[in-house]
Amino acid sequence: MEVESVADLVARYEQACGSSIPQAAYDFIAGGSGEEISQQEAVGAWRNFRLRPHVLRNVEDVDTSTTALGTPLRAPVIAAPIAYHSVAHSDGEIETARGVSAAGSLMIVPTRASTPLADIARALGGPWWFQVYFVRDRELTRRIVADAVELGATALVLTGDTPYVGQKRRGQLPPIAPEHYLVNFGKYMQPDAEFMYATSQDPTVILDAVQWLRDVSGLPVIVKGLLRGDDAAACVEAGAAGVIVSNHGGRQLDRAVPAVSALAEVVAAVGDRGEVFVDGGVRSGIDVLIALSLGARAVMLGRPVLWALGAEGAPGVERVLRGLRDELSHAMALAGVNRTANIDRSLVR
Amino acid sequence: MEVESVADLVARYEQACGSSIPQAAYDFIAGGSGEEISQQEAVGAWRNFRLRPHVLRNVEDVDTSTTALGTPLRAPVIAAPIAYHSVAHSDGEIETARGVSAAGSLMIVPTRASTPLADIARALGGPWWFQVYFVRDRELTRRIVADAVELGATALVLTGDTPYVGQKRRGQLPPIAPEHYLVNFGKYMQPDAEFMYATSQDPTVILDAVQWLRDVSGLPVIVKGLLRGDDAAACVEAGAAGVIVSNHGGRQLDRAVPAVSALAEVVAAVGDRGEVFVDGGVRSGIDVLIALSLGARAVMLGRPVLWALGAEGAPGVERVLRGLRDELSHAMALAGVNRTANIDRSLVR
Amino acid sequence: MEVESVADLVARYEQACGSSIPQAAYDFIAGGSGEEISQQEAVGAWRNFRLRPHVLRNVEDVDTSTTALGTPLRAPVIAAPIAYHSVAHSDGEIETARGVSAAGSLMIVPTRASTPLADIARALGGPWWFQVYFVRDRELTRRIVADAVELGATALVLTGDTPYVGQKRRGQLPPIAPEHYLVNFGKYMQPDAEFMYATSQDPTVILDAVQWLRDVSGLPVIVKGLLRGDDAAACVEAGAAGVIVSNHGGRQLDRAVPAVSALAEVVAAVGDRGEVFVDGGVRSGIDVLIALSLGARAVMLGRPVLWALGAEGAPGVERVLRGLRDELSHAMALAGVNRTANIDRSLVR
Amino acid sequence: MEVESVADLVARYEQACGSSIPQAAYDFIAGGSGEEISQQEAVGAWRNFRLRPHVLRNVEDVDTSTTALGTPLRAPVIAAPIAYHSVAHSDGEIETARGVSAAGSLMIVPTRASTPLADIARALGGPWWFQVYFVRDRELTRRIVADAVELGATALVLTGDTPYVGQKRRGQLPPIAPEHYLVNFGKYMQPDAEFMYATSQDPTVILDAVQWLRDVSGLPVIVKGLLRGDDAAACVEAGAAGVIVSNHGGRQLDRAVPAVSALAEVVAAVGDRGEVFVDGGVRSGIDVLIALSLGARAVMLGRPVLWALGAEGAPGVERVLRGLRDELSHAMALAGVNRTANIDRSLVR
Repeated sequence: MEVESVADLVARYEQACGSSIPQAAYDFIAGGSGEEISQQEAVGAWRNFRLRPHVLRNVEDVDTSTTALGTPLRAPVIAAPIAYHSVAHSDGEIETARGVSAAGSLMIVPTRASTPLADIARALGGPWWFQVYFVRDRELTRRIVADAVELGATALVLTGDTPYVGQKRRGQLPPIAPEHYLVNFGKYMQPDAEFMYATSQDPTVILDAVQWLRDVSGLPVIVKGLLRGDDAAACVEAGAAGVIVSNHGGRQLDRAVPAVSALAEVVAAVGDRGEVFVDGGVRSGIDVLIALSLGARAVMLGRPVLWALGAEGAPGVERVLRGLRDELSHAMALAGVNRTANIDRSLVR
Repeated sequence: MEVESVADLVARYEQACGSSIPQAAYDFIAGGSGEEISQQEAVGAWRNFRLRPHVLRNVEDVDTSTTALGTPLRAPVIAAPIAYHSVAHSDGEIETARGVSAAGSLMIVPTRASTPLADIARALGGPWWFQVYFVRDRELTRRIVADAVELGATALVLTGDTPYVGQKRRGQLPPIAPEHYLVNFGKYMQPDAEFMYATSQDPTVILDAVQWLRDVSGLPVIVKGLLRGDDAAACVEAGAAGVIVSNHGGRQLDRAVPAVSALAEVVAAVGDRGEVFVDGGVRSGIDVLIALSLGARAVMLGRPVLWALGAEGAPGVERVLRGLRDELSHAMALAGVNRTANIDRSLVR
Repeated sequence: MEVESVADLVARYEQACGSSIPQAAYDFIAGGSGEEISQQEAVGAWRNFRLRPHVLRNVEDVDTSTTALGTPLRAPVIAAPIAYHSVAHSDGEIETARGVSAAGSLMIVPTRASTPLADIARALGGPWWFQVYFVRDRELTRRIVADAVELGATALVLTGDTPYVGQKRRGQLPPIAPEHYLVNFGKYMQPDAEFMYATSQDPTVILDAVQWLRDVSGLPVIVKGLLRGDDAAACVEAGAAGVIVSNHGGRQLDRAVPAVSALAEVVAAVGDRGEVFVDGGVRSGIDVLIALSLGARAVMLGRPVLWALGAEGAPGVERVLRGLRDELSHAMALAGVNRTANIDRSLVR
Repeated sequence: MEVESVADLVARYEQACGSSIPQAAYDFIAGGSGEEISQQEAVGAWRNFRLRPHVLRNVEDVDTSTTALGTPLRAPVIAAPIAYHSVAHSDGEIETARGVSAAGSLMIVPTRASTPLADIARALGGPWWFQVYFVRDRELTRRIVADAVELGATALVLTGDTPYVGQKRRGQLPPIAPEHYLVNFGKYMQPDAEFMYATSQDPTVILDAVQWLRDVSGLPVIVKGLLRGDDAAACVEAGAAGVIVSNHGGRQLDRAVPAVSALAEVVAAVGDRGEVFVDGGVRSGIDVLIALSLGARAVMLGRPVLWALGAEGAPGVERVLRGLRDELSHAMALAGVNRTANIDRSLVR
């Protein structure tokens, strides 16, 4: 009686997507920028760490729960913001939301969602965060943030690493039907040439955007895409409640350092001034344990969510998220720690 | 006229088991937990060390003998505790004991033996150690320890890294006949549901178990499964006579550091307060020389014993153990050391 | 809609040359000296660096321009001196010059050009530099330098790493028609045995050649082929305006360090006393960004120019040079720097 | 017109031996001890070093000559002591001697030669060194040393790493005809059982053997087989004129450090109290340059001599030795050094 690991499960889901969704959709999800060096090394980067477990600790009662910006989490695993879930499933983010909700996890809903925010929020039925891309038209940006606030978003994630979209070797544009493209801006503008410009990334956004977002939303803001301690410090000094260490799944600057390798530096720079998250390459409960040992509050999952979504819909998403919680619980027991708060830096080498 | 190395011999034995014992039995022995990363890197971890032999030393008379907790050993090589030898041979631990005895080595008899302790002790005919798993029913634990003491065990090995059994990719349960399952508890209870719970691992065991074992047995106790200096120090301070550095053959927390890479840290932490042993991946006399150079008192052999047992029974076990002694003797001569006590840290790099 | 990276483009050009130009010509371009270790590791050496991009910087207006010895460059990418472009294209350096000129880049015209300097200079139609080999006949050297000055060269590049031509595994002599061999010396001598000696490399050239070149030309001189800080310091102290860190594309001393790995040492040794350039293995805008982060003023391109020349002539050369500029611009934006002057050491790890 | 490198030449010779000499002979030469880890990594260990050549040095006149214990050498390349050259060629060491002599190199004639010392000495026709194994019968040892002295040996090489012959995976005994076995002892004893014991390695030999050899021979003595600075210092303090850093071609203690990786430590320990040589894995003039940069006086060649001997006899041996001299000369020129005395530590990294 074998227990399938999450890593194996995700690999199986990815393979299933390889045959069930269009090749262009598969490539859009799988691909990285440039020579895909960062994309390829993300998973392996976690495997380079080794653990130093404790023995003879009472681990009958292991609890994986934690909080993220005050939101309670059953496990430190969050669905990362990903554009256009419709590439993997016809119900897009709504179906993802069903799976996340069933798993009791937290979803970061993207600006570039392919389904209406209201429907996603309804499917989630609990707290959620909203990821913000500043588009050229600042008023559009303000409106979509206001929509998210009204629909119950409890925090904003400002993506900082995408002044332009990284050049992808396998194709640049999301292979989705026009009616799914930037649907949440669509109610404010016609999809014409002006719309294309108005909704493209604004490359002039700088650090003061953090305060602007706080002002227009009244919500805590975290910045996503950091790989340096100095940038992280600047973010919390500019009012951010935390940061997400990420190289955008290897989709922005190729050869950017793996997120996990920048984690300790960022954690040290932020100190107790904010919460630090990390994404990119997480595939197992042991990866989550490593992330927490290095000081992360929680990890975020990108491609695994889409592969699960494409292969099995909401039940697949739930299975991946629950699987990680189970694996983390097991790994914590074998490492001799029964609370996430007891995980410390000495566990990893 | 070629001399087969122990590494080649063990590889041949493993291959033989691949065809002679059931696949499930093979997998149970070979498998590791999680993605089997720790399992796969164990053997190679020894090969990363390089030796700095001495020249022009008188090595006509090389003596590999030593002691372990006072027990004289012809060579610093001990049969590690392994559950359910019946997966490899119909006579199980009894057959192993015949081979260990013939080689003049020491056997650590497991709690989860698949044959009666009395028969194993008789086959050994000399000093032996008993490995202790704390099961949920503390009274059962006390009784089996008392049985071991009465049957002549001279030391106890408390396994500290198994509050739960690690999740194995290739299957979790030992593929053995019911009559071999926990046979040494069977005389105290019927094999019903209550029995399954009562004999499962007790995840609440903490450091004071060392003193408890000393009290109930009057024997010295060593703790197995350590990979950290701080844990090792805590063990000897809690009354342990020594520790076994081990990642449980890659069968508990995957990605735990290779035992050999934690050895020097543990040796430094223990100092002269106890004896340090190591297991995991040892396949040659040179590996043994490296272990001793890093401060180990002796090494322990796991899978190689089972492969030998499955392929040739007791004569196979004897051959592996004698082979390691011969290789160690040869390696000591070529390294310019004629006594195990003369092996020092400067021999390895 | 895929965007072909320069690395892929150059690989495709090289492959095309593999079928379109003679095998001996292909080997002459591709080959390295000795066991080709330095040749093989050049491209990979850049890939070992990882980037630490900034976020939330205004990068709407990215400018890749810079200057090299005062010459304005649209991007920090220069066509390195390469002997005998006729191996790749019937119009040789003239065709290269057309491509370089179209791209608005700078070409370093080689002493061992296979076409007349006057024709190359005309095709360039703007500033260019001349690469100097000291041949046995110093008067010939003086004359060819004078020709270059008269034809508008604005700087001299003294190649310092070629007292003899490195032994190539794949063949030593350029597979070109006699009329292309050292054509620019041909007007001063008949191609007889004396000519062969007179035009062979002068292995007695030492550091005072820098001042000699300055005196006879009135131009700034940079030294090419350095891999050590002490040599670089000696060059600027001897009057050089800068240096080019290079192992000659792995064509001189095999197992010489990769140029990029010597770059930081040379930059530190030169300080603000001169400009530092680098060549060898550059294949992408990210490589250029790394070079600039490590302190280079610009990179130089060798084989990629010849592969482009052989595959598509001037348009191919232009495409590679423009492609690198575009990739650098994109990489700068994603790294959060909008001016080459803002690129600093902290960007790379 | 390609120039075959010595590395390629030796590889070709080895391949030729693979078909022209008996398999057992091939295996005896090629094989290493244990798992052949040291044997396999010897050649690659040199390739890990990288060079930092100088530029703009006058290298018209490059001179590779040096001395070894006062013996002039045209290049710092010596034929290492190797047992039983008859495995590769019917004339054994005599044929080797012809090749060494033709190349103007130096040969270290082995105790375990398969042809009479007198014939070897005659074929050499110049200075030579004698390698000494202490056999169980000390008087036999004294006699064979006395023979060597009488026949003109000018130095002795005491092999210190062979108290016993290392266990070889591919077979232990030299596959030679009985009349070639220890021929130089044969004149003193009948080849009976007593002879076998008397001529076996003496594992009791210690450091005072150095002085004993000096006393009985009046010649300088160097010790071969060192891999540690402390051992090297002890040797020169015991009267040795130098040492040879070697792991015996991976034929003694497997996993002993590669000779080149121990070289700098030994050079530092010996200082100016003796000369340091190195063998194991040298295949190119660049290897020789690296050895000299690390402080070696000269390198020694083992298997390449036998492969050349087996493939082409004396002309092959000469070709390998001359080839290394030519490659060293070329490498020195490209590294900017024209005398072996000018080669320093800064050339390698």
